[in-house]
Amino acid sequence: MEQNLLKASAVLLNQKAKFRCSVNGKPPIISDYTPPHGDGEGYTSLELMLLSLASCFASTVKFILTGPMKKTVSAINATAKGERRREHPTCFEKIELFLDINADCLRAEELENVINAAEESICPVYAMLRGNVEIVVKYKIKEKV
Amino acid sequence: MEQNLLKASAVLLNQKAKFRCSVNGKPPIISDYTPPHGDGEGYTSLELMLLSLASCFASTVKFILTGPMKKTVSAINATAKGERRREHPTCFEKIELFLDINADCLRAEELENVINAAEESICPVYAMLRGNVEIVVKYKIKEKV
Repeated sequence: MEQNLLKASAVLLNQKAKFRCSVNGKPPIISDYTPPHGDGEGYTSLELMLLSLASCFASTVKFILTGPMKKTVSAINATAKGERRREHPTCFEKIELFLDINADCLRAEELENVINAAEESICPVYAMLRGNVEIVVKYKIKEKV
Repeated sequence: MEQNLLKASAVLLNQKAKFRCSVNGKPPIISDYTPPHGDGEGYTSLELMLLSLASCFASTVKFILTGPMKKTVSAINATAKGERRREHPTCFEKIELFLDINADCLRAEELENVINAAEESICPVYAMLRGNVEIVVKYKIKEKV
């Protein structure tokens, strides 16, 4: 069932910046900051943000391809690379998102239209970053042998 | 060591929307979408976004309090609640972030100044969502007994 109200929590575990992050009923994720402020024993908040974007964008593209477009997708591998500002706030000024997709009979032009639709109106995480971060999406299509 | 270039990846694990999300050298996080599009066997991308914001904002506040302000913080518990739009893109239109802080000799006014600084110029994840999502931060201070 799709939920409209989501809840998540982060509890500090030590005297530095290690948190137990969780959502009810799911295995906790440890977040931590890099030394010296943290011990580097978990995902940084910015890495969690990259994973949020990569999984959201990849599943949005996958749903459009396999749903309305009735394509067969056998693999998707999304990699996000984020480049941080050196001054506060040290957020990403640019994120490059690479999509490696294995699909049958998928033309580059078709995938570009899907990526445009995801960017313009469908991908929720992209929509929340839009305008604040430059996001460049690249792709590679591999035919299944 | 603080890194300026971060990299994360998401690999599709099934025919639905289950991904193995990871950053080199860290234990993978499973993401999934809610049924029927997914099997609900992991964190949704939007839950990862909430965890990214909660851990980032909480650690930003913690660093300012214990660093320049030399306060003693014995606990921080951050809870983020996000309300999704019902139309595409189904991103959050509002996020409420609750901070429960145990600290000695911390006045409400001091914490409010820290929260304002985090919002205005320090918290990276907040900066990336700013303007696109309404974020309301609330807090409770508990004196350590």
